[in-house]
Amino acid sequence: MNEDNARFCLLAGLILLYLLCGAAIFSALEHPFEVRARLLWKQRLDNFTRRYRVNLGALHTLLRQYEEANGAGIRVDRLRPRWDFSGAFYFVGTVVSTIGFGMTTPATIAGKIFLIFYGLIGCAATILFFNLFLERIITMLAYIMRWCHERRLRFGGAVVTASREESSGEEDSLEGWKPSVYYVMLILGVASVVIACSASTLYSSMENWSYVDSLYFCFVAFSTIGFGDLVSSQREHYESHGAYRLGNCLFILMGVCCIYSLFNVISIVIKQTLNWILEKLACSGKHRPCSCCGRGCLWLCCPCLKSKNQHRRRPPANLRLKCDGSVETVCGSDTDAGLADEVHVGRRLSGEMISVNEFMVSNKVSLALLQKQLSETAHQGPRQSHGHQNGFSGGVGALAIMNNRLQETSVDR
Amino acid sequence: MNEDNARFCLLAGLILLYLLCGAAIFSALEHPFEVRARLLWKQRLDNFTRRYRVNLGALHTLLRQYEEANGAGIRVDRLRPRWDFSGAFYFVGTVVSTIGFGMTTPATIAGKIFLIFYGLIGCAATILFFNLFLERIITMLAYIMRWCHERRLRFGGAVVTASREESSGEEDSLEGWKPSVYYVMLILGVASVVIACSASTLYSSMENWSYVDSLYFCFVAFSTIGFGDLVSSQREHYESHGAYRLGNCLFILMGVCCIYSLFNVISIVIKQTLNWILEKLACSGKHRPCSCCGRGCLWLCCPCLKSKNQHRRRPPANLRLKCDGSVETVCGSDTDAGLADEVHVGRRLSGEMISVNEFMVSNKVSLALLQKQLSETAHQGPRQSHGHQNGFSGGVGALAIMNNRLQETSVDR
Repeated sequence: MNEDNARFCLLAGLILLYLLCGAAIFSALEHPFEVRARLLWKQRLDNFTRRYRVNLGALHTLLRQYEEANGAGIRVDRLRPRWDFSGAFYFVGTVVSTIGFGMTTPATIAGKIFLIFYGLIGCAATILFFNLFLERIITMLAYIMRWCHERRLRFGGAVVTASREESSGEEDSLEGWKPSVYYVMLILGVASVVIACSASTLYSSMENWSYVDSLYFCFVAFSTIGFGDLVSSQREHYESHGAYRLGNCLFILMGVCCIYSLFNVISIVIKQTLNWILEKLACSGKHRPCSCCGRGCLWLCCPCLKSKNQHRRRPPANLRLKCDGSVETVCGSDTDAGLADEVHVGRRLSGEMISVNEFMVSNKVSLALLQKQLSETAHQGPRQSHGHQNGFSGGVGALAIMNNRLQETSVDR
Repeated sequence: MNEDNARFCLLAGLILLYLLCGAAIFSALEHPFEVRARLLWKQRLDNFTRRYRVNLGALHTLLRQYEEANGAGIRVDRLRPRWDFSGAFYFVGTVVSTIGFGMTTPATIAGKIFLIFYGLIGCAATILFFNLFLERIITMLAYIMRWCHERRLRFGGAVVTASREESSGEEDSLEGWKPSVYYVMLILGVASVVIACSASTLYSSMENWSYVDSLYFCFVAFSTIGFGDLVSSQREHYESHGAYRLGNCLFILMGVCCIYSLFNVISIVIKQTLNWILEKLACSGKHRPCSCCGRGCLWLCCPCLKSKNQHRRRPPANLRLKCDGSVETVCGSDTDAGLADEVHVGRRLSGEMISVNEFMVSNKVSLALLQKQLSETAHQGPRQSHGHQNGFSGGVGALAIMNNRLQETSVDR
């Protein structure tokens, strides 16, 4: 089994395990409430039939009819019309974003068939929109973080001049610098929390939900899960009607974009963890030679770790070129150009490792995390030099975006 | 405004327009039904209160209580328990996949808070799973399509030997060959339709839904919209209980993976269309020089088109190298390596264009589509040679996967 397949199967297994654990926990949390709710409803129904001497069968028929009416968006407490223009707009918004609250659903056959074709194009366009947004936001974050890093370097250089040997060393460390995935995750996480909290404040005041309910709604909506047990902007009348509807749309748009980006960044971290697990498994199975020095890959005692740290001050371009040798003959033919690409990527990965390294050290993050990152990066190295032609195979979805954007913004100045 | 931003804004504008049109159409389709349903419910409620002489206020209270009970998963017609282990498993499945039918939702505060943290990791892991699946399926498709292409070439070579000048020409065309995005889209589309139809047959027989309703459910579930107006496997008893639940889970898993891949492939086509629109807009604004020959870029009469077609028989490696010149000095320093990468990517894009070209010509697709593809590819060329260092910036999300996989499998033999 090749490594991509192994990673895929490992992930599938872990998700299955995660689902089983989640099912057990939710079952334990919610089952007692379900039993109580069932009893309560039975009691209420009994009371009603006894008091008004209604035939239970007739009442059941009425309740079935009410369920049917619910499906068409009718409630006892009057809601906003479902299929006026603004209601339909809210509906199509939940379709293309795949939130799908289900507070409004097409009931006619024509509507259902149209939905299939409408959703096919709409969802694809929205996925593209989210991906482009992800690209934009990461570019922006990388620029901002680089600017902050530059300022910090300059400020540090002005104050602690004695600790720097020469100004060119400073330039080098800036050139090799790239923002860390963990930093980006932190920023996106904070942004998501800020948006969710602001939106919750709005919702809890406008919808009379508790703050926890509002937060729960925000997560369910922003992550595009969209249960539909709580749906914002459904009542017929609110104070400052138009402004609330607009604010609701904007909050949901911002939230969905932000959480989508956050999910993708977290998925990169999960992928790194998977690589680390695979590496550990491979190490415990057989002693594979490590990418740069051919020694064993038990990272906790691997000497490469130290030697890689020593490379830190050198410009990153030298790193991989030295390992591979044959570089001057690179760009003649097709396969040679492929090799150049490979070398370039190898160097880039080394650069990334170094920058993460620097960031980690400067922030005094635990050694374990650092080693994870290092092993992941080094692990990608040998894999990509085997069968893969351009080395970007590791960059799936958001990972590719991250790699591109983070590298691009840190080098092209 | 740079081009990435322009594309993003154009897409946002088009999606807004799409939403407005969709809202108008859905409103027209569904509004009459809503009005009828409202009248019908009013009539039924009146009948009931008159017949059983029930106080309307008391009945409204009962109906509100029924709504509340509905939220806890209680219906008149007994459903499967919500929060036993299998019900909770179905629930967490809809959470991590972001389907979120909402047939089961956490009602306790502990459950809601746990859901936020559980969903955060679960959804990120599932996005990674979908991306890895996309990567696997495209690798597989590319291998299969290459194998078919090889067979066709060999078969064609055996029968029509006169039309080939030499066997090396055949090898060349195979090396430059890459499966078309449109082909992959077609295959994924067919696979999705097959899965949806098989699942619909199962659902319509087990759930007593009409076939259209079943198809609608399949689309809503597989696209992770998940309205929850129709939810499979909710009744308490089915024939062959366990087998149906398993089949239901497998169908939803396969469907979601397949439609996710299809959405991503469609989003690439949408991106190409956006690029084409931008190119057209830029052309009508000012006559920009085209990437390879410096002439105007009005594609319908552009002479580059012809000269590019003439390059077809040559190995793709020469194409871009000729255009750029300074290639031998490439791999010395950091920026030079970047240039090498750029040249490599430029060549790859040219190669891609040529392969699409060949495919299009051989399949006699209309010239308009061919020109769109050509202009899109040529359009990416000059952009990437400006500011972007590694040239993969065009490859967002699935696009990156497609580029990598399709190229990788067609070159590394």
